This record gives sequence, C-alpha cells and structure tokens, in this order.
Amino acid sequence: MVAVIGDASVDPAGAKAVAARQVGALIIDRRWRLVTGGMGGVMKEASAGARASAAWVDGDIIGVLPGSDPAAANPFIDVVIPTGMDHLRNSIVAHADAIIVIGGGAGTLSEIALGWIYRRLIVALPHEGWGARLAGMRIDQRVRYKDMPGDCIHAAASCDEAIELVARLLPQYQRRHSDIKTRIVS
Amino acid sequence: MVAVIGDASVDPAGAKAVAARQVGALIIDRRWRLVTGGMGGVMKEASAGARASAAWVDGDIIGVLPGSDPAAANPFIDVVIPTGMDHLRNSIVAHADAIIVIGGGAGTLSEIALGWIYRRLIVALPHEGWGARLAGMRIDQRVRYKDMPGDCIHAAASCDEAIELVARLLPQYQRRHSDIKTRIVS
Amino acid sequence: MVAVIGDASVDPAGAKAVAARQVGALIIDRRWRLVTGGMGGVMKEASAGARASAAWVDGDIIGVLPGSDPAAANPFIDVVIPTGMDHLRNSIVAHADAIIVIGGGAGTLSEIALGWIYRRLIVALPHEGWGARLAGMRIDQRVRYKDMPGDCIHAAASCDEAIELVARLLPQYQRRHSDIKTRIVS
Amino acid sequence: MVAVIGDASVDPAGAKAVAARQVGALIIDRRWRLVTGGMGGVMKEASAGARASAAWVDGDIIGVLPGSDPAAANPFIDVVIPTGMDHLRNSIVAHADAIIVIGGGAGTLSEIALGWIYRRLIVALPHEGWGARLAGMRIDQRVRYKDMPGDCIHAAASCDEAIELVARLLPQYQRRHSDIKTRIVS
Repeated sequence: MVAVIGDASVDPAGAKAVAARQVGALIIDRRWRLVTGGMGGVMKEASAGARASAAWVDGDIIGVLPGSDPAAANPFIDVVIPTGMDHLRNSIVAHADAIIVIGGGAGTLSEIALGWIYRRLIVALPHEGWGARLAGMRIDQRVRYKDMPGDCIHAAASCDEAIELVARLLPQYQRRHSDIKTRIVS
Repeated sequence: MVAVIGDASVDPAGAKAVAARQVGALIIDRRWRLVTGGMGGVMKEASAGARASAAWVDGDIIGVLPGSDPAAANPFIDVVIPTGMDHLRNSIVAHADAIIVIGGGAGTLSEIALGWIYRRLIVALPHEGWGARLAGMRIDQRVRYKDMPGDCIHAAASCDEAIELVARLLPQYQRRHSDIKTRIVS
Repeated sequence: MVAVIGDASVDPAGAKAVAARQVGALIIDRRWRLVTGGMGGVMKEASAGARASAAWVDGDIIGVLPGSDPAAANPFIDVVIPTGMDHLRNSIVAHADAIIVIGGGAGTLSEIALGWIYRRLIVALPHEGWGARLAGMRIDQRVRYKDMPGDCIHAAASCDEAIELVARLLPQYQRRHSDIKTRIVS
Repeated sequence: MVAVIGDASVDPAGAKAVAARQVGALIIDRRWRLVTGGMGGVMKEASAGARASAAWVDGDIIGVLPGSDPAAANPFIDVVIPTGMDHLRNSIVAHADAIIVIGGGAGTLSEIALGWIYRRLIVALPHEGWGARLAGMRIDQRVRYKDMPGDCIHAAASCDEAIELVARLLPQYQRRHSDIKTRIVS
C-alpha cells in the first residue's frame, strides 16, 4: 500500500495535479494499492489517476476520511474508511508502506513527521511545499535503520523516479514502529 | 461496507466460528465489503468465510489493525490498515455502514456503544456475549432517527436473517454522526 | 485521579445530580483529583460538587473535552484539556485510576468498556442507566487480576460507599493496560 | 495553558535544558499552567523549572503521556494524563493556548504542524532542531487570522522574550480549530 499525500486543494490543470494523477496511475500499474486521505486536491487527483490505470481493479483505492460521513470522499475512492478523527487520520495514512509527497502544507507536514517516526519510506517530488522543502533531508538524527546511512526523505525528480525509488527501496524499509514509548531516556 | 465484530478468540469448530464464516461469506455474496478489526477469533473467521465466497474479489476484505505492523493481520485480509491506535481502532470499525455482532467481550461492547452513537445499523446474533445480551435492546433513550420507533440493536436468529435485516434496513440508516459536540445541554 | 462518568444531561434537582455533586465533593475531601469529560450533566454536577468542597484547591478538577475549544468546558473545570477527539476522549477519561459511574448512556458505556480493558477499578452507583445495569457484573470473562476472584464492576449503594470502595480497593488495582496487542490468539 | 515542546532527550547541563527550565519557571511565575508530553528531555526540564518557581502550586504542571501507565511520567508532573495514544497525544499538547518550541525532532515537528492547523500561537527559541528551523516562518499559506499579516512561528531570541511574546500575542490568538472538514475544496 502506497500513500500519496500533498496539497488538499490544487489547480486541476497545474503541475501538482498532473503529477498526482501520474503517480496514482503508476502505483496501480505496479499492482500496488493506493491510500490517501480521501478528500480533494492531491488526494483526489491521485485517486483519479489510479482509477484511470488499465490495471485498476475495484478495491485498489483506499480513502481514510477525517469525518464520519463516507459521502465526503472524492468520487474515485473504492474503499472509504470514515474515521471521525479529523486530522489524526493523518497518522493512519502515515502508516502506509511507502509515502509519496507532492507539495503539501501543514497536514502533509504532520504526515511526514509521523511517517518518519513510524520508520516509513518517504519519497518527495520537487513540487512547492513540504515535499520540495524536505526532499533529500532527514527529519531528525534518529537512526531509523542501522546500516542505512542514506536514510532520508528521498528526492525524486519525476513521477517515474518516485515509483522506481519505492520499488527499489521498499524491501529495506520493513521495520515497523515499536509502539508506545514508556521509558524516559534522560 | 459491513463490519463483523465479536470475540477476539473462538474455538474454530464452535458455533461462533461457524456463524462468523457464514456471515462473512454472505456479505461477499451480496457484493458488499467486509471490515473487521483484522485480528483473530470472529474477525479471522468472518474474513476466512468472506475469502471462501465464490463472489470474493481481492479488495473486499478490510482489516483495521490496532497495531502498527501489517504483518499482524490474519491471513484472510485483503486491505490491511495498521493504525497504531490500540483499542481506539474500534471506533473506525464502528463507522461501518452496518455492524453484525457475534458474541463479544469488552472490545465488542465498546464498538457497539460507539456504533450506537454514530447512528449505525447494528444487528446481533444470539451467540453468548454482548451480542446476545443486547439483541433487541436499545443502548440508551436517544432518538437516533425520528419516525423510527423500532430503532434498537436488531436481533437476528440466524446468519441469513442478519444479512436480510442489513439489506432491508440499511436504506433507513443513512444519518451520520454529526461529529464533535461543543455545547452543554444542561 | 478519580473519574466520574454518567449522563451528559441531568435534571439539576434530580437524584443523579445530587449524587454527582456529593461524589465530586467526597473525591476532593479525600485530596484526590477529579477528572470528567468536562461537559454537562453528571460531568458538570460532579465538578460543581468538587469545587464546593472545603478541601478544593485550584487544579483539582480536570476536564477532558471532546472538542477543540476550551470555552466549551463547564464553569467548574480548573484544568481544561481540549482534545478535538470527539467521543474518543472517553478513552482518556477511562484511563483514570478509578471510575465512578452514575447512570449513563452509550458514551458512558464506551468508557466502562474501555476502563474494563484498561484494568481500571470501576464502581457503579444504583442510578438508572449503565451504572445500574452493570453494577456487580463483569464485562467479560477475562482475568484482569489473578488472585482477585471478586473483580467486577463494584456496586455501591451510596456515594459514601462508592468512595470507601475506591479508597479500599485502589491499591489492588495497579496493573495497567499493556498497550497494543499484536498477536492473534486463535 | 502553555505547552513547552522539544527534544525528548537533552543533556541536563546543556543550553536546551537550561532554557527549558527557565521557560518552565517563567510560565509559572506568570501564573499560567504548563502542559508537556510528560516524558523526558525538554518535557522534563520544563517541568522541573516550573516546580522550582516560587509561584508553583500543585496542579500547575500537566503531563499528557503517550502510554497507559501514569508511572511513566517524569517526577515533576502534578497532573498526569495517561492516554495510551502513543504519538497521537502530541495532538492534545498542540491544543494548548500557546506553544513554546525548544529544538525538537519529528515528534516536535508533528506538534508544530498540528498546532498550526489548530490556529495556536507558536513561539520558537533559537535552539537547534525544528524550533530554529521554523522560527519566523509560516508552515503554509493558509490565512489563520484575517488582519494578522505577521502571523507565523514567532521567533524569540531568549526565554524572556518568548514569554513576553506569549503574553502580548495570546489575546489575538483566540480562534479555535473548527473541527472536522467535510467538504472538498477542489
């Protein structure tokens, strides 16, 4: 399952929308599933792209909604998961196997921060927003994976490269969050 | 999307497991999707039954996990949603369009209580546990739907009847939780 | 920290309100802290009673709100914790050291179910609602504490008895929830 | 209520610890309450500083824990709120009236992102980490407050200045998060 995150509102004719649709389609072409926050902008465009893939099968596109009403989902979601959790549903999106970032504001930033904590593979496209600002960087100095000195928010110059990075790196990103920390370090 | 909830551990040869598998299969036979908490017991048996339906398509069976690791899901889940939310993932299961109860302990009870708050259609089979204890009853006196004096945890004597009840009543259970209450009533 | 839970709306002159105020006052008289969901009904009356105790010190009364706005708290809360979590804030209330139940509907029932899972001491007064329905009963058959065959929702006939039960039993209720379950039992 | 957030582990003799203790003390000197995540590092040092203020009263220092066990709190917390929510408890800390940032990694970043969404006043000290990286910047271009063109993560050069900024700006930061977004913008 690959998450696509980014701006909750985009110009449907702009570069972010084009990239989101392309990434969505490529994810389905690979026979992965797509998960988003189920609403508009990058979430909607990625879902539309996924739906347009020749490889799409009903059930491939999951939307994890902030509200309680499944009717709020964009029309390209196959599996609607209403949560009633508001922005905390970002944490569920951030549990995806891999996360691809296209621009993004504060909500996207919260997903990146949580995805980093959850040791997820994160790939950022160069579109304006937190994707561009964090591409190639580390969120903090924690060692998420031993023997992986290059761990970072991986930068991808194109949608194809983003998908290639996910395909190549995902086998190395298999550790999961060890859940609740109960001891104080210092 | 129909949720099946109940005991997290059951005898695979016992009545609850048989019912869970049958309900799971009937849900898929109807071309609905199944959602469970993704773990063992009734969750696992319902998923196994769903997988065995001739109508099953990959993507029909959703498991919303308490932990962060998708590997914890039972082997019959198609779409694994790790949440890291522990028992609060019960609230997501309780957002399903309809909920079928097979026995159940405290976790199941929390899902029934939340499903009641979220105005969901709840149908209980007569198996020992909270399903049997609440079948035919109301959780409290709130009017969830005007002009629906018979609103309650609907009792079903058999799996077939449970599915029939869902099919017949679901169109009347379309109101959604109005989210956060911010005013004090008294 | 002792939680008082129950109806979100009560007649201020009725038996539930009187009991809530009395229990709130007795909690503070003991120099414990009170936690509630911060809104109306039993939550408000318990807080009012706590505030009226001669032993009350600012900071003794905590309200964990469903919404994001601290202004929604009832006027007797000292420490307002807005959560934006809607009914899931019930889970935080259910983490209190002990829980006293006065009546209650579905929200209260979700708190009792979660408090049972979290191995908390729960004492129910005989007022109509889930408190009365569950007093003296067990939520399910799990062994929350070895060597404690009498573990149940403890019934108290009066506010004084409820407080006595908390004082006497709390030292035995020290085990905490072991957090996220990641293995399937069967 | 003012939150202090930052590194979960610090050198007790280092600049971050000194600043955290000073900020904690100044918060209590002002007769505000302090809320932190209740664990170590900046959370612990701020709490220690708060406890050392001559104005401290029991109940002034709140710790919102990730786990279920109140015993995990650092020893300077007065009001322990165990949540069992893991990193999602960051969202509760981010609901404080104002947030002061001292360094910080991914957890702190998630709190800043959520605090920005919740329209909170955020003040960052110049210590290495997300505090320094975001001081003086905006998280995204949303208009959190009309007629407040200078809205940003406010930069403070010293602890005294941070407290002054909170005192001066807090009256302007009174809008609250309007909770769950249910419509798609585009």
